[in-house]
Amino acid sequence: MLELYFTPDTCALASHIVLEDAGAEYRLHHIDFERSDQRSPDYLAVNPKGRVPTLVTPQGVLTETPAILVYIAQLYPARQLAPMDDPFEFARLQAFNSYLCSTLHVAHAHRMRGHRWADDPQAIAAMQRKAPEAVGASYAYIEDHAFVGPFVMGDQYTVADPYLFTLAQWMEADGVDPRKTPRIAAHREMLHSHESVQRALSAESA
Amino acid sequence: MLELYFTPDTCALASHIVLEDAGAEYRLHHIDFERSDQRSPDYLAVNPKGRVPTLVTPQGVLTETPAILVYIAQLYPARQLAPMDDPFEFARLQAFNSYLCSTLHVAHAHRMRGHRWADDPQAIAAMQRKAPEAVGASYAYIEDHAFVGPFVMGDQYTVADPYLFTLAQWMEADGVDPRKTPRIAAHREMLHSHESVQRALSAESA
Repeated sequence: MLELYFTPDTCALASHIVLEDAGAEYRLHHIDFERSDQRSPDYLAVNPKGRVPTLVTPQGVLTETPAILVYIAQLYPARQLAPMDDPFEFARLQAFNSYLCSTLHVAHAHRMRGHRWADDPQAIAAMQRKAPEAVGASYAYIEDHAFVGPFVMGDQYTVADPYLFTLAQWMEADGVDPRKTPRIAAHREMLHSHESVQRALSAESA
Repeated sequence: MLELYFTPDTCALASHIVLEDAGAEYRLHHIDFERSDQRSPDYLAVNPKGRVPTLVTPQGVLTETPAILVYIAQLYPARQLAPMDDPFEFARLQAFNSYLCSTLHVAHAHRMRGHRWADDPQAIAAMQRKAPEAVGASYAYIEDHAFVGPFVMGDQYTVADPYLFTLAQWMEADGVDPRKTPRIAAHREMLHSHESVQRALSAESA
């Protein structure tokens, strides 16, 4: 049995959707950031990073969305959620996920969590002001160069799709106009009606 | 034939070392940041991100270090540079690489490239001041929780080793004292004497 520690409206949603896509048996644990659950000794014993997502597996604990997504895909190969047997296609998927975690999500985090990188409140405010530009530039890159369509990788749905969908939930709050990247906006709308996405979203808002 | 676009003293070194580890046939292209080669139309046609590394393969172009490292490992399975057939072990490797690209390298980048996330020179200076703390916290996490030893994953050398080695080259410049993380410091010293590392370093300084 897999166990996912998640917080609603975080990147943990991507792992949650992929558990649904895989048809996995899993249990959810809600980490409430407002109660600072992520800093509790119990949770830090599971994940010393104090962040979400965390996936507890029979073999041990996993963190980091790109790792968790591919792990679930490998556990359920019949679902074909990642092209594991084609090194180039798999690397294309990995490059996309890596860009999301190290560039797009990081740009977004400068609006929400600037205290990670500066102490001065004015510096934190300066990061917030630039976030729409930095996040918008990441989406423009994806729209123009990385997204194939109708899914991220082309005709085949992969774990990159719910990952992009998850971050794209925050576009408006990040000050980015979805109309500037119409293919990503259409992808977001399409994914929203997927059954796995609907199930994950309703479980998180329950 | 693979072609690696690199700049000396950047994270491209990790891909370069792994090409050596794999015994791959490859050609190097030097992208000189001082001449702004990365912004030239020729290079942007290869990699619109305008960053390094870029790996050109017979099937197309790859970017993002975690993707490139695993791609090379998959192309040369006999070298056993990544535990592709053990989903949990592979996810552990991926989580490590993902942490390097999205947390450690990002913390470092706030010393070097704060302009990505703020325009105000005082905000950029504030990021530089906090970089030693943010980078140091990342190394402390790795030392205490992620690094197994003697290699990152344990007894087996994997692509995570040259990746950690590459970023750890910058510890002193990032204001981090290597003596605070003695296992990482010992790993850096051990890797430095590896033949593949020596070959890559001398090619980059040639």
